[in-house]
Amino acid sequence: MDLELEKAIDEQNQEAVIEFTNRFQPYDLAKMLAELDHADRITLLSMLSVQLGAEVLEYLEPELQYRIFNRMQDSLTSALLNEMSSDAVVDMLLAIHPHQAKKLMEFLPTDYRDKINTLMNFPPDSAGSLVTVDYIAARISWTVDQALQHVRKIGRKAEIVSYIYVIGTHGELVGVVSLKEIILAEPGTKLEAIIKGDVVSVPGDMHQEEVADILAKYDLVAIPVVAPDNRMIGIITVDDLIDVINEEATEDFQKMGGSQPLSEPYFKNSIWGLFRKRIVWLLILFVAEAYTGTVLRHYEDTLSQQIALSFFVPLLIGTGGNTGSQTVTTLVRALAVGEVTFHDMFRVLWKEVSTGILLGFTMGVIAFVRAMFLGVNFEIGSVVAVTAVFIVIWASVVAAFLPMILHKLKIDPAVVSGPFITTLVDGTGLIIYFTMAKIMLHL
Amino acid sequence: MDLELEKAIDEQNQEAVIEFTNRFQPYDLAKMLAELDHADRITLLSMLSVQLGAEVLEYLEPELQYRIFNRMQDSLTSALLNEMSSDAVVDMLLAIHPHQAKKLMEFLPTDYRDKINTLMNFPPDSAGSLVTVDYIAARISWTVDQALQHVRKIGRKAEIVSYIYVIGTHGELVGVVSLKEIILAEPGTKLEAIIKGDVVSVPGDMHQEEVADILAKYDLVAIPVVAPDNRMIGIITVDDLIDVINEEATEDFQKMGGSQPLSEPYFKNSIWGLFRKRIVWLLILFVAEAYTGTVLRHYEDTLSQQIALSFFVPLLIGTGGNTGSQTVTTLVRALAVGEVTFHDMFRVLWKEVSTGILLGFTMGVIAFVRAMFLGVNFEIGSVVAVTAVFIVIWASVVAAFLPMILHKLKIDPAVVSGPFITTLVDGTGLIIYFTMAKIMLHL
Repeated sequence: MDLELEKAIDEQNQEAVIEFTNRFQPYDLAKMLAELDHADRITLLSMLSVQLGAEVLEYLEPELQYRIFNRMQDSLTSALLNEMSSDAVVDMLLAIHPHQAKKLMEFLPTDYRDKINTLMNFPPDSAGSLVTVDYIAARISWTVDQALQHVRKIGRKAEIVSYIYVIGTHGELVGVVSLKEIILAEPGTKLEAIIKGDVVSVPGDMHQEEVADILAKYDLVAIPVVAPDNRMIGIITVDDLIDVINEEATEDFQKMGGSQPLSEPYFKNSIWGLFRKRIVWLLILFVAEAYTGTVLRHYEDTLSQQIALSFFVPLLIGTGGNTGSQTVTTLVRALAVGEVTFHDMFRVLWKEVSTGILLGFTMGVIAFVRAMFLGVNFEIGSVVAVTAVFIVIWASVVAAFLPMILHKLKIDPAVVSGPFITTLVDGTGLIIYFTMAKIMLHL
Repeated sequence: MDLELEKAIDEQNQEAVIEFTNRFQPYDLAKMLAELDHADRITLLSMLSVQLGAEVLEYLEPELQYRIFNRMQDSLTSALLNEMSSDAVVDMLLAIHPHQAKKLMEFLPTDYRDKINTLMNFPPDSAGSLVTVDYIAARISWTVDQALQHVRKIGRKAEIVSYIYVIGTHGELVGVVSLKEIILAEPGTKLEAIIKGDVVSVPGDMHQEEVADILAKYDLVAIPVVAPDNRMIGIITVDDLIDVINEEATEDFQKMGGSQPLSEPYFKNSIWGLFRKRIVWLLILFVAEAYTGTVLRHYEDTLSQQIALSFFVPLLIGTGGNTGSQTVTTLVRALAVGEVTFHDMFRVLWKEVSTGILLGFTMGVIAFVRAMFLGVNFEIGSVVAVTAVFIVIWASVVAAFLPMILHKLKIDPAVVSGPFITTLVDGTGLIIYFTMAKIMLHL
């Protein structure tokens, strides 16, 4: 909590507040505001310009935004709510109770309320859920000068003015022109003459991860979202897509660790919440792993005759699991960022099997050395070495094959997590081990 | 390969080429160009406007860029090279042989060459390595109108015109103003009156991941990079930082899978390259896992007396490993995105231990049920159940503690990969298991 700011607020010294807030970014001011007591928060917002106040509000959690609006004078609520970018408004309205949302929406003019209602109907994680309607549109018949006047008129609320979207007679998106080009062009030039017609746009129901990929590919700062009839719904700005990229990577991380992804930042999850996200996969993996007990009981006689075989069980299946984990994480990520697709199946298998063979023989030699050091006889050492070769190759093949197949079946390949592949290799690896032992030791 | 494009090029039909290229984004044109034969690539580039040609070139691999320049007429090389954004030029020059780089740099005017030389000296992965010098700077003494005229004059080559950076009398960065604000302001207004003085900037030697975090936090489209005396080196644009975010996540993925990160996209790695990245950790983990053999040999007598104990070895250590893997991936990611820091140590431990206790008791019950189904006696079933409880809790504690400590020691917490924690829990888990067995079975 900043004492200087608190003092200025308590003294109702607007000049000092403004002087203070000028020194910080809206993001930082939002952090400070969150730490003030509730009355001070509202006083602070009433002292800031509506534009800065709205920007600061946008960085707060939806619940806190609502609590602030709930205690504020109606005139200020109305001003701030109409100034906030529409994606932030939609996020807040979706997070609070429908009754509360309805009350707040009464502060919006009818046509804006309709737009907000449309946006609220897009499913979470869709392009539509990230849309802001605060973009600049121009008519195809306008001149550069008309467009620039339009920017001057409505540009203040626009989230991004880098692009001006050009609309045809039926409201359909026909092209885009950058503000840079508008400024560089002669004032009398028709927009028609300078627009780029091959505008990259996405439908409202596209998954947000795909939108982020497209934006990254074409190096855009914003991307227009269109309805099936090509009319513009709004735009998605790059800052929201950066958040999407980070969230999706975090989700994939958690999946690859063998857990259901957390939908909230770490500390927002209760102990009970963490438990529920983790226990599901722990149980699935336990059931799959339980198979190893059946395998080992099946080979009980072999084990009793050669108890030394048991010394190498964790080492061999562990090495297989590690190899599988390396391959699967590399491929799941390569599939997620589009470096690899299903068409590359055979190239991937070839690469992984070849690498697996190299790794297998290396680990075979090392395993033999380790067995000798542990003082077992030459025969058991040989079984361990040969098993190491086969387990490593086997793990590479399975770990390369499964994510590719799942990707083809439109199932998220991250289901094949490190723990999943480790578990799979454990049971099958034991079968390889004891089969080798029976053959090579004539048991 | 596009036949329509190829035909137009072969017929030297510039009009058809331009009509064709107008329908695509530079990114898509770069893909098509890469598939043309070498002579056609050069013909195509000679037919495009210098601006579009340079944009297309920027999407190609450095080696291909160089091969194209190498075969081109000097006048075209000079035009395109000077039009390309400076970060793309630096990337290319660093990727090719110094002799080749020197030859190409002769096409650049002296002062630009000096700037490029400075940028080439920044280490890879630093802010400086991503800098482009194609930004717009204005003097603090200028009016809005002067600034706008300046944008008109030099804006064409600028990578981003959304922000205009305001420079003081000694070339130091004193503020920033958005193009939007310049357009909205009265022409005669002094820049001084509308600039934001609290400009977010980064030093050239800051790690690129940290720069990306700052940009994401403040929702910026570009961020200025400054020398220690606060003079501007250049800017980093959001598109380059999106690439950084994706690359860093990919690296962390590969590390968490227990492999050294690949520095190239998947298919660019040879089999031998993949082998070398993987064998290092496989060997380290093997040596660590080899310890399990020593533990098992130590308990050889216990094992011989109760061979059924061996049935549960993979199941128990596997469950411990899975729990550890869940915790460690969640925390390593939370540390990477800054959701958790070292100061949260005790909150994290508390959360993980509590969750671990819940998970442990659940798995203990399930393990007991499984043991009974496998037909072992009640005593062994109890040992398995109690061990499951302790192993799960133990794995949670270790997996929570280690990444936090490494983060504090400024070692990348991703070193504690899933396979690493699994290996660690394997050996220690066996000790827990046999200690329990000896106590509870009075062996």
